[in-house]
This record gives sequence, structure tokens and C-alpha cells, in this order.
Amino acid sequence: MGGSQGISDRHACKAALARRFDKAAWLEGADIPARNLHDAGYLPPTPPLGVVRPNDPQGFADAMAICASHGVPVVPQAGLTGLAGGAQPIAGAVAISFERFSGIEEIDPASATMTVRAGTPLEVVQRAADEAGFFIPLDLGARGSCLIGGNLGTNAGGNRVIRYGMAREMVLGLEYVLPDGTLVTGLNKMIKNNAGYDLKQLFMGSEGTLGMITRAVLRLYPKPGCTCAAICGLARYDDVLALLGAARRGLGPMLSAFEVMWADYWHEATVTVPNVRRPITGDHAFYVLVEMQGMEAELDAPRFEAWLETQFEAGLIEDAAIAQSMADVAAFWRTRDAAGEFVTFLGRHSSFDIGLPVGVMDQFAQECRAALSKALPGCLSVYYGHIGDGNMHIVALMPGAAEQPGKAISEIVYRTVKAHGGTISAEHGIGLVKKPYLALSRSKGELALMRRLKRALDPQGLLNPGKVIDLEEAP
Amino acid sequence: MGGSQGISDRHACKAALARRFDKAAWLEGADIPARNLHDAGYLPPTPPLGVVRPNDPQGFADAMAICASHGVPVVPQAGLTGLAGGAQPIAGAVAISFERFSGIEEIDPASATMTVRAGTPLEVVQRAADEAGFFIPLDLGARGSCLIGGNLGTNAGGNRVIRYGMAREMVLGLEYVLPDGTLVTGLNKMIKNNAGYDLKQLFMGSEGTLGMITRAVLRLYPKPGCTCAAICGLARYDDVLALLGAARRGLGPMLSAFEVMWADYWHEATVTVPNVRRPITGDHAFYVLVEMQGMEAELDAPRFEAWLETQFEAGLIEDAAIAQSMADVAAFWRTRDAAGEFVTFLGRHSSFDIGLPVGVMDQFAQECRAALSKALPGCLSVYYGHIGDGNMHIVALMPGAAEQPGKAISEIVYRTVKAHGGTISAEHGIGLVKKPYLALSRSKGELALMRRLKRALDPQGLLNPGKVIDLEEAP
Repeated sequence: MGGSQGISDRHACKAALARRFDKAAWLEGADIPARNLHDAGYLPPTPPLGVVRPNDPQGFADAMAICASHGVPVVPQAGLTGLAGGAQPIAGAVAISFERFSGIEEIDPASATMTVRAGTPLEVVQRAADEAGFFIPLDLGARGSCLIGGNLGTNAGGNRVIRYGMAREMVLGLEYVLPDGTLVTGLNKMIKNNAGYDLKQLFMGSEGTLGMITRAVLRLYPKPGCTCAAICGLARYDDVLALLGAARRGLGPMLSAFEVMWADYWHEATVTVPNVRRPITGDHAFYVLVEMQGMEAELDAPRFEAWLETQFEAGLIEDAAIAQSMADVAAFWRTRDAAGEFVTFLGRHSSFDIGLPVGVMDQFAQECRAALSKALPGCLSVYYGHIGDGNMHIVALMPGAAEQPGKAISEIVYRTVKAHGGTISAEHGIGLVKKPYLALSRSKGELALMRRLKRALDPQGLLNPGKVIDLEEAP
Repeated sequence: MGGSQGISDRHACKAALARRFDKAAWLEGADIPARNLHDAGYLPPTPPLGVVRPNDPQGFADAMAICASHGVPVVPQAGLTGLAGGAQPIAGAVAISFERFSGIEEIDPASATMTVRAGTPLEVVQRAADEAGFFIPLDLGARGSCLIGGNLGTNAGGNRVIRYGMAREMVLGLEYVLPDGTLVTGLNKMIKNNAGYDLKQLFMGSEGTLGMITRAVLRLYPKPGCTCAAICGLARYDDVLALLGAARRGLGPMLSAFEVMWADYWHEATVTVPNVRRPITGDHAFYVLVEMQGMEAELDAPRFEAWLETQFEAGLIEDAAIAQSMADVAAFWRTRDAAGEFVTFLGRHSSFDIGLPVGVMDQFAQECRAALSKALPGCLSVYYGHIGDGNMHIVALMPGAAEQPGKAISEIVYRTVKAHGGTISAEHGIGLVKKPYLALSRSKGELALMRRLKRALDPQGLLNPGKVIDLEEAP
């Protein structure tokens, strides 16, 4: 952790930052806002040495260079909505915040690209695209407070990955600051560019441990003309798989979501959480939310209904409801988004965003539920997620327990994930929270290569140290 | 270039390879096939020290480790169809060929993935997907002879990038051998996996200079149910841009190709090359081939025709022909693929696969044509390409000249590319052929970072040395 720096280095670093930046850009002591003391990873608030908030790319490079020259580590902070502790401050480290470097720099309609600053809230990016007649498919619950630089640094996922891919796939060009303070600009606008290594890939999904993203060129997509959705009840997981195959074939590139909710989840979401309407009644083993983004309602809504009818006639579906309005679409999604209210109605719990090969998901759910019940009698665990993308969420808790056995639950879940060749994080990332479990999803060779990259770019371990992976293997 | 190895090292290396591999897997001297002496980059044939042709992943790791331990450099060879000299042998280096490590290892219908060996021809991969009820969108002229490992190592593009992305975006998992002989296996099947750095990205598009790909997990896509296509004649580049915007909006994710041919190209393709039918007559400044892959002909063909009718009524199109059959679709593509026959009917020439922001392409074509004519009076240059992806091809030559001024042409073209913020290679890569021009498309910071990565993974410069980028900056 940039180990050798002492009190005098810290003082000299703070003094150098205070000289370089004005009072709006350099905050220390009591001026450090409470929000900068933690992210959404539920770790204890930790005051950083100070917070730098530059408002141009060179400012980020200078801040990094000043810290590096004094051996002072740095923690990049965007919207602080990450769940894995990737933006959690470190005592003795300077926090570099992107909040003051916000705005859309250019929209190029011919190339269908948007150049944005890292500190722009996702919702602002979405709205600017919409106003220019385009669409930004990246979307997640924190859209109002997360910043695009954080979305890209963590390679955010979200609801429509099955159609549009992860955040990484929406990026054409990138500008970033390396751990030595070099500003590298590669604001490419072309979909195809094979002139040398695709360097930008290094900085997406590495959670600010290899570089800090300052600006990006995003792809713009055509606006969907209509949205169709249905909630289906199914009896067997094989039918879920068959329905997924039929959706891929029949809805093709218009398929925009395929969300599966196991019966235990459905009960908590529509009974325990109040005011969530059940679009279909009756008891089913699985509930599937299928969504299609079409071009024209006139042509595509009948296509969706005919497709669903075919699946019903084929016996895959026991019952289904089709959304008749955008209000219905929103109501259907509420059954899926009710998980966000579990903390209120079920209490504190462990939540997971694992990934698994699609075929083994139900077997995994059965084994995981059994293993949790056996080790922790009375443990409640419910299963749901973006099954079309191989991404499952789990919520698990001991109902009524004052102290939740979070560590025991994590160990059982992740061990079962490993047994099925899955990943401990499909979208939220590793940060600090999941770092102890990383070796369950990555081979020794992959971990060694990650460390080699970290050492190549950040030999002193100054950028977001201790997150994701350490410079050296633990003894 | 692995500089310090001498004759005794080479002998010892050859002896070690001969001990490890049988006679089918280790070829030296007169047994080296002529095809392994060069790729499709038109460089002088060069015999390698020998050719190793392992038939399992460990064999590739062992071959690399043996060469590395003797300080002998290695050149990976797949289908040898690359145009940039990336697989061109180097005197004193061992060629490691993937041709004997071929086959599909698994198709997982639930995850919609295929696990393939690097030595599998692209056409075999396409056919296996088709037989399993899926679709592999990667497609290029060399499909019968190129190998999937080469396609991935060069991040191949092709005709349908506007819809499906580059080869990189079709890969979920990868296995590769590092320059020190370590075999790293990461055969992930999940679309979403944020457990640490996305290491596989390093090995796609780096043309075998950072590692050798041995196996891959590919995404499988739904089979398109129908293909619609039209050739349109347009008067102005602004109309081309407006038509592209309308195609993105109106055809949405079904838009599978948007190819533009400038009038000079159209003349050579349909007059100079015999037997290429002109789907539309009359003289236009631009010819656009629009293709849509739909799901059902009954619904989607009328959609395509209505869309085209709207564009005609809006005055964007001067004339258009709609394909009435798959034979028509093939005939339309022949106007675009006629470029492959220019070598026969126009003679030897320089060809380019540059990339540019879409909005400036016509301005670029005008300036490039004028600059070539001025510097080389009588020079013929024609322009066409995957404009929807920002990728333009150029064919340029001095008609009738015994010796073509290839270097002078390249310098003019690449200088003009740089002036417009473009890339010297959209899809074919850098290899040896375009290496002298790389700095025209990449910033100093990017080049320094590429070198840093190369040094981190291959400190001795043993894997495909001298391709793409050198270990150290030229003095």
C-alpha cells in the first residue's frame, strides 16, 4: 500500500496539492464531505487524507503525479454507489473525486457517438442521448447518482445486457490517467480500429486499480420504438431453458430482457413486500419476465403476442400476462425490482450477484439452498436474476437474527459457485468486499497475470491499493 | 529480437523440440512446408528455424517454454491469410502452427456458447453453429482457410460489424500461452463476469505478440430468419449520412450492413471487372448496399420495403433495386466483393483498410484523391467500405506502371488519415506492413503504454518479435 510513505511525505503532498488546486478543488480536515468517507459497500466510514476534485483532465493527471511523487496512495471516487467497496477511502490515501468534471463534450450524429466527461451522472448521459434522437442502453437503479466514469471503471451491467452487452461494449474511445500521472488520450470514434493493442479494455472493469478514466467516447444506439413485456409462469427449469431458446430465436435481436424469478423469490417479492401487484395468479415454480424492444408497435406488438401464443400452445408456459401499456411494463418490472425493498421488509441480509452457466442455474439454486439450510438451520435464501446473461442474484438471511452470519453465508454460496464453474461477481465487481473470494472464480494463472499487469502499470501500488488484487501473492 | 541467442542455442532448441514432439509435430529443413514461409502480407518468403505443430494446449505451452529457455523467438501461425505480415516467419525463429489443433469441443445450447480449438477453420465453426441451430456472425472472404485462433488474435472484422461487433465481442472465454510458456485457462461461458481484470482482451487484436490463443468460448447467436437487401444510388454524401441515420432508426438492430461505394469504385467494379451485374443503372455519386437480417420474411420483408419507400419519398435516394431472392442478395454483394478481383483486371495495387469518423469520409476521399493525383499524376484511387462501422477501403495504383509506387501512395494516404483523426487499420491489423505508420494513429502515450505491456508480458521479446510494436522506442 505505497508502504514507505511517512508523516512528512503526507504533509508535503497535502501542501503541494493545496498549491496546485484552489479551495473548491482541494478539501482537507473538517472540509471533507461525509459522503466521501465511504461508498455503498457497507464498510466503516474512513476519512481520506484529503479530497481533490479537479475539473479538467490535466488536473487529474497533476493530482496523481503529485501524490505519486510523494509516495501517497490515491483512491478514485465517482458516484460512490458501488457495492463492493471499490471506492472506499483508505486511511493515509488521497481521494480523487470526479464529481466536478461533468458534462457532455460532443454528440456526433454521423458517427453515432457521444464524448462525455467521467463525472457526468448516468441519467444526464441518458437524457442527452434521448434529446439528440439516440439511446444509451446502459441503465441501472443508481442512474441518478452514479457517474459514467464509475460505470465504465467497473464495467457496469444492468438490465439489458442480453441485448446490448456490458458497459465495455458501449465504449469506443477512452482517456485515462496512469498511476505515474501520465494522461493518455485515445478518444477514438470508430467502431473498427485495429491499430495496435486495444488499451482501453484494461481500464474498464479494473475498478480504478490500473488507471483513472477521465473521458470516454460512447456509442449511441437507435431509440427503441416500442416495448413489449410479459410475465410467464412455468413448471420446470427445462421449460425455462426452452423458453429462453425460443425467445432468442423468435425475438432475435429485439429480445431485451429475460429475467427469471424462482418461486421463493416470487413469494417474498409479491407477498412480503406490500403493494407489488401479481400480474399472474396461481402457483408456479418459475416466473419469467420477457421483454422485447421493437421498432414499431404496429408491427412488433403483434409479433410478440404471436410468439407468446406459440409458446403457450407448445406447453412451455402454464400462464402468462402481457403488458397492455407502459404502466403494465413498469408494474411487471416492479416484481423484479422489489428486491431493492427486501432490506425494509426482510431486514439486513447478504446479497450476491453471481454468474453461472445458464444450464446449471436451477441445480445450483437447489444445492445452495440445501447447503445453507444444513449449515444454518432456518436460513432463508431466494433466487432470481438476469438469467439470459448468466447472472443470478441471491438474497440470504437468518430471519429475526440480530447478528447476520454474513461470512458463513458468503462462504457457502461462493463454494457452491466454484463447484459449478461460476463467477463470484457477474456485474458489481470485486473491490474490497469480494477480494477474499477472488481465487474461487479465477485460475492461479489468471491471478498471477492480473498481478503482473498491476505491477507493470502501478509498480509502487499507489492507485487504489488493496482493491481487487494485491501487487504480490499473499504468503 | 531475442537478440543474444547464437547458433548453439538454436541447435539445442531444435534438439529439445525434436525430443518433445513426434515427426508429425516437428518439421525442420526440407520438411518445412512452403506455405509456412509467408502469410498473405506479400513479404519475401522466409524459412523459419522449424515448424512445431502441437495438437493439444499443453503442447503449445511446452513448445513456447522450450524456445524461451533457449532464447529462441517464436512466430505463431494460424491460417496465414493475414494481410499485414503478422504471421510472417522470422529467420532464426521457430514457427508454431495451429493447423493440427482443430475441432469443436462443446456446444452448450443453454448458455448459447461453443468451445473451439484455435486451429479450427472459420467455415467449420460457422457450419457447426448452423447445424446446432445457431449462428456465428463472424464472416470474411478467407472463411475456408483462415483459422479461428487467427481471427481472434487479430480481432477480425468483416461485413456485419455494424450489427454484431468485432470478433472480440463474440468471445466469452479464452485459453492462451504466455511468452514464458505458462498456459492460462479462462474458458468462461457467462456473458457477465466482473471477477477481476478482463484478461482475455489483451490477447485479441494484439496479433500474437502478447500470447498465443489456444482455445476460446464463442457466443452463439440466433439464426437470422430472412435477409433483405437493396442497392441505392444517391447524389450527395449528406444523403448517404441521412440514409445511414434512417437505417439505424428504422431497421434498428436488424440492420446488418451499410456498405458505400463511391462512383469511381462502382465504375471499376461493374465495368472493368467483367460479369458483375449492375443492379441499378444511371450515374450516381454514391451507391449504398443496405442489408437487414430479419426474423421472419412475412413480417420483415414488407418492413424493409416500406422503409426504403419512405427514404425514396423523402428524396434521399435517386434510384434503388430491392433483392427479390437470395440470388439477388448475392449479386448485390458481388458489386462490393468485386474488389477482390481488381488484382486480375487492374493489376498490382496498394490496398488500405483505414477507419475514419463517418462524417468526414467524403471529405477525406476528395482530399486523398487530390493529394495522390498531385504527387503521382495519373494515379487511380477508388473508395468504398463498411461506412456504417467507420471503415473505408481504398485501392490505389499507377495504371500500367511496371513498378508500383507503393511507399509513396501509403505515405500520402496515411498522412491524410492522420489529418482527419482516423486509423491506419480498421480491421487487418498492423503486423510488419503497417508498423512504420502506427504512430500516425496512436498518441505517444498510447505507444508508450503498448511497449510497457509488451515488456511486462514478454520482457525478452521472444513472442512474434518486431510485429506491431517493439520493446523499446526507436532512437
